[in-house]
Amino acid sequence: MTTITTRELKERLQELQGQEVTLLGWIRNHRKQKNMGFVDFFDGTCFKNPQVVYDNTLPDFEAVQALRVGSAVKVTGKVVPSYKDPETPEIQASAITLEGDCPEDYPLQPKRHTVEYLREIAYLRPRTRLFQAVFRVRSVASMAIHSYFQDRGYVYVHTPLITGNDAEGAGNTFTVTTLPKGSTADASEDFFGKPTSLAVTGQLEGETFAMAFSKIYTFGPTFRAENSNTKTHAAEFWMIEPEIAFCDLGQLMDLEEDFLKAIVKTVLEKCPDELKFLDQFTGGGLLDKLNALLTSTCARVTHEEAITILRKAMENGTEFKFEPKYGEDTAKEHEKYLTEEYFHSPVFVYDWPKDIKAFYMYQNDDQKTVAAVDLLVPGAGELMGGSQRETRYDLLTRRMDELGINKEEMYWYVNLRRYGGCTHSGFGMGFERLLIYLTGVDNIRDVIPYFRTPMNCDF
Amino acid sequence: MTTITTRELKERLQELQGQEVTLLGWIRNHRKQKNMGFVDFFDGTCFKNPQVVYDNTLPDFEAVQALRVGSAVKVTGKVVPSYKDPETPEIQASAITLEGDCPEDYPLQPKRHTVEYLREIAYLRPRTRLFQAVFRVRSVASMAIHSYFQDRGYVYVHTPLITGNDAEGAGNTFTVTTLPKGSTADASEDFFGKPTSLAVTGQLEGETFAMAFSKIYTFGPTFRAENSNTKTHAAEFWMIEPEIAFCDLGQLMDLEEDFLKAIVKTVLEKCPDELKFLDQFTGGGLLDKLNALLTSTCARVTHEEAITILRKAMENGTEFKFEPKYGEDTAKEHEKYLTEEYFHSPVFVYDWPKDIKAFYMYQNDDQKTVAAVDLLVPGAGELMGGSQRETRYDLLTRRMDELGINKEEMYWYVNLRRYGGCTHSGFGMGFERLLIYLTGVDNIRDVIPYFRTPMNCDF
Repeated sequence: MTTITTRELKERLQELQGQEVTLLGWIRNHRKQKNMGFVDFFDGTCFKNPQVVYDNTLPDFEAVQALRVGSAVKVTGKVVPSYKDPETPEIQASAITLEGDCPEDYPLQPKRHTVEYLREIAYLRPRTRLFQAVFRVRSVASMAIHSYFQDRGYVYVHTPLITGNDAEGAGNTFTVTTLPKGSTADASEDFFGKPTSLAVTGQLEGETFAMAFSKIYTFGPTFRAENSNTKTHAAEFWMIEPEIAFCDLGQLMDLEEDFLKAIVKTVLEKCPDELKFLDQFTGGGLLDKLNALLTSTCARVTHEEAITILRKAMENGTEFKFEPKYGEDTAKEHEKYLTEEYFHSPVFVYDWPKDIKAFYMYQNDDQKTVAAVDLLVPGAGELMGGSQRETRYDLLTRRMDELGINKEEMYWYVNLRRYGGCTHSGFGMGFERLLIYLTGVDNIRDVIPYFRTPMNCDF
Repeated sequence: MTTITTRELKERLQELQGQEVTLLGWIRNHRKQKNMGFVDFFDGTCFKNPQVVYDNTLPDFEAVQALRVGSAVKVTGKVVPSYKDPETPEIQASAITLEGDCPEDYPLQPKRHTVEYLREIAYLRPRTRLFQAVFRVRSVASMAIHSYFQDRGYVYVHTPLITGNDAEGAGNTFTVTTLPKGSTADASEDFFGKPTSLAVTGQLEGETFAMAFSKIYTFGPTFRAENSNTKTHAAEFWMIEPEIAFCDLGQLMDLEEDFLKAIVKTVLEKCPDELKFLDQFTGGGLLDKLNALLTSTCARVTHEEAITILRKAMENGTEFKFEPKYGEDTAKEHEKYLTEEYFHSPVFVYDWPKDIKAFYMYQNDDQKTVAAVDLLVPGAGELMGGSQRETRYDLLTRRMDELGINKEEMYWYVNLRRYGGCTHSGFGMGFERLLIYLTGVDNIRDVIPYFRTPMNCDF
């Protein structure tokens, strides 16, 4: 009789029927009757938890009945067929012993707490069913991403988090320093001998590795010091940034679509119980949306075509708060209309006006647009943003000059265009955006273990 | 005729013999004879690179002969048996076209550059054979770590990088702020409304998830603002921190040993060419060391036993710069002696004097030691550091008081001991230490894409 996890119990349920097993975990709920009791038991290794049944033949029946919600326990008993659900294991307990007690005023009670309350006790919320589902999906999706790229020969690159670059503008970065507060010492006296900040992207360093390994990806934390309190912004989040040599914009869209479908497929396969729960929790529609993706083709329209669609919708009575305009950025409501009302699928919008996009994007022949692409998805808006990169040295440096980006400081990036440069493309995906799409949970604070937002850095 | 990678070429070499293929990549070396030429071609997807042979039947023979090292090229040609090595593919080129030129003064020439020189051009060094080997091992080892834990039901947790905690002491952390330089404003006016720094560990947050999922691991960046310029210290590095509920110190050692062997085994299997090269590059012994690990058993001694061994060695003539003493920390030379001279294998040293270890470690009955364990390995010293955690509320808080750690601020950590606490253990492994062990490359600067050390934050 060895100790097993609930995951092993579920996987070997047939074989274990009638056998005695020992489990270690926690009490989520405890219902008591006069001569027996029922413990909702979990150890977090499996979403589907066994029910533990005991009766007054236990020598310490009264002590067992006194066990409180939240306590850690060791359960030994026989695996028996469940009377209510053949897939939910049931344990007929021969012994239940206390491993770690829990007081009566335990903040997690067996009832539905609000997500706002659970954020205040974020160190306990992974024990709830909602967050067991969310954080397992987070883990499984992480692995699916690594597997996708590694199976296809991509090299995983850890780009630096502390950076002296200022390529994307200084506005939204966190300063990193070891100088004492209030110090006016020159940056040359700081730890790195110059001003440093937390990276907002690993793309530029990623490109240097793509020019050596052809196919690379990053998967790491990224930081934005934006003072925005929305459901989709956090100061610290994780990002995936693949970069591919000898790849143009069309091939990039193919990759993005294949990648998204592969991740969704894996999560559907590996987390069926979690997704079923999340589907119900978020009001239905999640599973339909994810399953539909697998068999659909993502729409592809230029930015100009997208604006035309939006303006026609407006003419036909759709009300937008912001007027869709050629040459300008789209708003959340526009993205929502395109994915949820018009195409009913994810949509690639490509060839964006160059003035609203970054300096490193490939300049199209029309002199007005760049070979950038955003992937919009139902329910989560912009999920991926990518582009073919400007590989022509002259055009790149001219654009940097126009935008006031210091090309001398960025010599190493610019030099990639001189030293065996080639057509290459890449995209970035905010991991939490993907999780919002995958779980249906609509607030970024609820898909990150410990969220960092303006005025919040708890735990 | 589709484009393939050198990885596909190697995997399908038999099938492709005699076929025409197209490859996209770069010229590492170009040797010219009067009527023919040889291009060492690479695209970074495979360590074993094809040789491209062409002759003066090419219509643009002269232009092809003018192609410079470092250039990006497209090669079309027939796969033919290699005359020198049956495993190295050879391409009889029918066309070689330039994709991206490279100047004569390209900093990477086909000769052996020093690692010091290559650090200065870190954005180009991944194109060299040494760094192709190192960074592919880095990627493959990353994946092996994820696979190990995911296959065993561990949940991957992204612990926060920006933290308001000060649990391990303020000395060695980077401040994170959005206040302008020189500002003496109160921390309440900073982005998070309080002083924040970059995390030195994710363990404490990891423990909160272990109390919900039983088995978790982290794999993310970690920061130390230590002003040390050694071969093994960097200000930014990646760390793996598993945490396991219902696991004691002995089980933790079992896990560490099994984990290390599994990673070594996977890297040996997946990177045979890279390791062979690294074995030669680092002077031999690497492959022997790694292969020996797989069949050996790691030694296990208490700290006290280790000191006894060291003191006996000293009595027998071994010279140490620092005298090994009971109750005190060991030095690098002592670790080296234990692994390389005495045991000839990795060694677990456990039950350390409590005064030189962290507050959260389980206090042994002897009142003097804690249930901590360091894993020492030949060539890289301390590879993993772990412990059984103190789960007794009273003993933990008393120890925090003794060490001046604010237990009110850390209420969430302390509360894990009140809310269904259980025996649990975990360890931390610096990923770059593992890479030094796996590659034989002895400087941390050469196993990180862009290293951050005192006064260095380039690229």
